[in-house]
Amino acid sequence: MARRKPNPVERRRELCDAAIALLAVDGAKGLSHLKVDRKAGVADGTTSFYFRTRSALLRGVAERLAELDLANLQSVADSAGADGERSSPSQLSVMVIQSGVEPRLSLTKARYELTMQATRDPELAAILRQSTDAFTKLHRDILVRLMPHGADLEPAVVEDLSNVTLTFINGLLLRFAHGDRIISSPEQLDDILAAIAVGVLKSSKKGRLTHATSERVLSERSLQE
Amino acid sequence: MARRKPNPVERRRELCDAAIALLAVDGAKGLSHLKVDRKAGVADGTTSFYFRTRSALLRGVAERLAELDLANLQSVADSAGADGERSSPSQLSVMVIQSGVEPRLSLTKARYELTMQATRDPELAAILRQSTDAFTKLHRDILVRLMPHGADLEPAVVEDLSNVTLTFINGLLLRFAHGDRIISSPEQLDDILAAIAVGVLKSSKKGRLTHATSERVLSERSLQE
Repeated sequence: MARRKPNPVERRRELCDAAIALLAVDGAKGLSHLKVDRKAGVADGTTSFYFRTRSALLRGVAERLAELDLANLQSVADSAGADGERSSPSQLSVMVIQSGVEPRLSLTKARYELTMQATRDPELAAILRQSTDAFTKLHRDILVRLMPHGADLEPAVVEDLSNVTLTFINGLLLRFAHGDRIISSPEQLDDILAAIAVGVLKSSKKGRLTHATSERVLSERSLQE
Repeated sequence: MARRKPNPVERRRELCDAAIALLAVDGAKGLSHLKVDRKAGVADGTTSFYFRTRSALLRGVAERLAELDLANLQSVADSAGADGERSSPSQLSVMVIQSGVEPRLSLTKARYELTMQATRDPELAAILRQSTDAFTKLHRDILVRLMPHGADLEPAVVEDLSNVTLTFINGLLLRFAHGDRIISSPEQLDDILAAIAVGVLKSSKKGRLTHATSERVLSERSLQE
């Protein structure tokens, strides 16, 4: 009996997952359509059929990563609970620490490979930016729910806090991708994030710590013109 | 009259600087011995003569980057002054913000390309680790000099503060490398670093926030055995 042929959506997802595994181990340099075919165990030429160019394949991978990341963060947001209940360690810290060990470490590594590629591929950069924006928005919602009196915080303060926290998490994930585990438990991360929050909230009375998203978009435009 | 032939040390430096420029624009994928020859304006084959393999070239670039970074940070350390005088903005923040604009932005981008390569090249990883360790040590000295009563801080607290701060700076430089300028002035960075320090010092009474370097080395070894 013939194996059921997967539908195109499933097939694309399967190929992107194989490409993520390749990116994590061999880097962007080691990625080719044929290697994805072999890794996914499909007929030679399948990946080329679904993704005509290398750039199309990378965009497919970026969309798949965004889908996985956002689903993961959404479950954190859901567990952060509208009832204001706070768990310790926070689900956000659990998620970040899990990104430093397999199976999620491969996603972390693949994401950095893609972001390096994106500096030379504006379409890929646009997809990554879209997913970063969605991720940032969801992260702000989680912050507001997790912080004591979060709902009373000024939007500018939430934006500063989110910018500083996400920049720290970015640096942490990069260290994880390179095998440098400066922390290993969600409880440690909770303590660090709480420490950062204390400092940022204290100094937020003096004015903005980071640029608002809108200002950053404007200044980028003015650089391009 | 023939142009003076540079000595081997100067020549290697010249070739590495050309390789850094290529890495920044085209990424690791766009790097080849021949392209370095052309970029440096030397005879075809020169780079292959000085760096026999691709790995040797990348190691040469890593050493050159470490040399430039450490010289830069050393000048910050020197200006931090034994007399306890503190400037505002701090030279450390000035240095980090400068890493987000050319000509230093190219070094920042090249460094991330190398760190991605290092996940697949243990010799390259060892060189990068060595320079990170030297950088971290120097950064701790600067922290101790810049912090009020820095000399009285427990070594464990200085290590936590340095780990958290450098992880944040790492994340910031990565955002800079991708054109995301969440901050643009050394004064803003000073405020953020001060905010992080306030939080970390406050929570340091509870215990360690990050793993000590020695513990990290031990846990890495146990992973490898």
